[in-house]
Amino acid sequence: MTDIEMMRIAQLKHTINLQADKVDARLNELLSRHGPFGVGNSVVADAMRYSILNGGKRIRPFLCLEFAKACGGNEDIALDFACAVEMIHTYSLIHDDLPCMDNDDMRRGKPSCHKAFGEANALLAGDSLLTKAFNVISSIDCSSNIQVSAINCLSELSGIKGMIGGQVFDLQFENSNPTVNEVLSMYKLKTGCLLVASCVLGSLSYENCSSKSRQSASDYAMNLGLAFQIQDDILDIISDEITLGKPVGSDEKNDKSTIVKFYGLEKAKEMVNEYTQKAIDALDGIDGDTTTLKEFALYMANRTY
Amino acid sequence: MTDIEMMRIAQLKHTINLQADKVDARLNELLSRHGPFGVGNSVVADAMRYSILNGGKRIRPFLCLEFAKACGGNEDIALDFACAVEMIHTYSLIHDDLPCMDNDDMRRGKPSCHKAFGEANALLAGDSLLTKAFNVISSIDCSSNIQVSAINCLSELSGIKGMIGGQVFDLQFENSNPTVNEVLSMYKLKTGCLLVASCVLGSLSYENCSSKSRQSASDYAMNLGLAFQIQDDILDIISDEITLGKPVGSDEKNDKSTIVKFYGLEKAKEMVNEYTQKAIDALDGIDGDTTTLKEFALYMANRTY
Repeated sequence: MTDIEMMRIAQLKHTINLQADKVDARLNELLSRHGPFGVGNSVVADAMRYSILNGGKRIRPFLCLEFAKACGGNEDIALDFACAVEMIHTYSLIHDDLPCMDNDDMRRGKPSCHKAFGEANALLAGDSLLTKAFNVISSIDCSSNIQVSAINCLSELSGIKGMIGGQVFDLQFENSNPTVNEVLSMYKLKTGCLLVASCVLGSLSYENCSSKSRQSASDYAMNLGLAFQIQDDILDIISDEITLGKPVGSDEKNDKSTIVKFYGLEKAKEMVNEYTQKAIDALDGIDGDTTTLKEFALYMANRTY
Repeated sequence: MTDIEMMRIAQLKHTINLQADKVDARLNELLSRHGPFGVGNSVVADAMRYSILNGGKRIRPFLCLEFAKACGGNEDIALDFACAVEMIHTYSLIHDDLPCMDNDDMRRGKPSCHKAFGEANALLAGDSLLTKAFNVISSIDCSSNIQVSAINCLSELSGIKGMIGGQVFDLQFENSNPTVNEVLSMYKLKTGCLLVASCVLGSLSYENCSSKSRQSASDYAMNLGLAFQIQDDILDIISDEITLGKPVGSDEKNDKSTIVKFYGLEKAKEMVNEYTQKAIDALDGIDGDTTTLKEFALYMANRTY
């Protein structure tokens, strides 16, 4: 890697961290609004904050804010959209970790929500965050048209035709032998759809967002999501446990249907590069500066953890 | 009961059933839209339909539609609002029945959702219905202002400051000795808030709904909810098992803090009548015909199951 490339990556990481700080501050505000009310101090309110204010990288909010910038959108609106998306993401992790789903005791190096607060409280914390996401968007002081478009997009892409649909397939695949196309469909739903929501909501923060911009945001996000998931499959094989922060080879051990299992490592790497290039090409549809979004796609394709 | 009173009750029941048929037909449409897509035929989609198309009385949709009528609202908009509220109500029942919550095997004489479809599918069916509620409202072809008001109201009243907050208190009270005011607050949140959403959403289907109408709808619903819950406490003591359709005396056996336990049967009956009268008085703020809503409040106060 050249010095210039290393500088650019350092700059990108700096930008991601700055955006994450903004998002954390706003999430903190949005979730302490419960304060004056009795349940605001309840264990469920604590569980919501515990799970969402966990030092996450805020990739989805970052994408939302960057698309707002690139499309000339309103930063305040985009920030609340970004927080809503992160609430949806967090609720899905809380519910995924429950014993009846993946039964994960740990999440980002800390006890998962139900381990820390009990199952009933974790269930309700997830439900509350899901509900709060739509409350946040509908509370923004802006044009109602923007709000309805954003809520329609987010509810569609996070529902049974989107993110939850991905979970449904994931459950089904445990007892079947999916085809490679079925696995790719599952990746699109499970990971791609919420990334699409993040990027599209960013573009929607510009009231006169063209359908071309919206489509570009969607294409970028979906290809980024596929590249991300396949890179995950690859890292599960080649990374070492310390770098990855979780046991390697767990997919193989669980006999999970991954792209690497279908095609092998080399072809999987090619696919990551192809989807990344498609994501970058999609940015041509955006009039503003998309340098950071391009660099981000390349950075994700080359990540080692 | 006089012949005229009996005729009026028969007429009211007829109206409730007619509205329920409309709601069922629309719910069926809204939930079969998933059809063309793969996950539309999934077990989670089946679980959603199983739980919502269960022959329920559709009290919340009825109230929404009646307030729309009384306020001069749009029936099509109100019907979709009513379906959204019923989706929220149904998701809350699915999640409440889960083993980590009330662990109920039966719901309305049939196996509860997780008994019929497994816990993971029930969890996702609940999440999907919750998400779908906001998707339905944001998909209506009407003024965005109405949609945003409805989504804001429903998300506020069904979230941690509303219905979920009631669940939070209910969980807390299992391990504490709540005061009578705390029990009443819990009733307001757990039952009252979603009834308020039903009635207010009905009134919002009239675009120029005044804040006075909205307040009346809210006051009617909250008092109706309190009367309903206290009547429930009473019926748990005095009804027989066959009429009630569930074991009687279960509150006493579980040492549950009910209004009857605090005040005794007589005072509890007085309270039902007082809250019912307050609900009826609140209807004065509505310009249109509220006869059916008045009769409904009296009917609920005198129910024996």
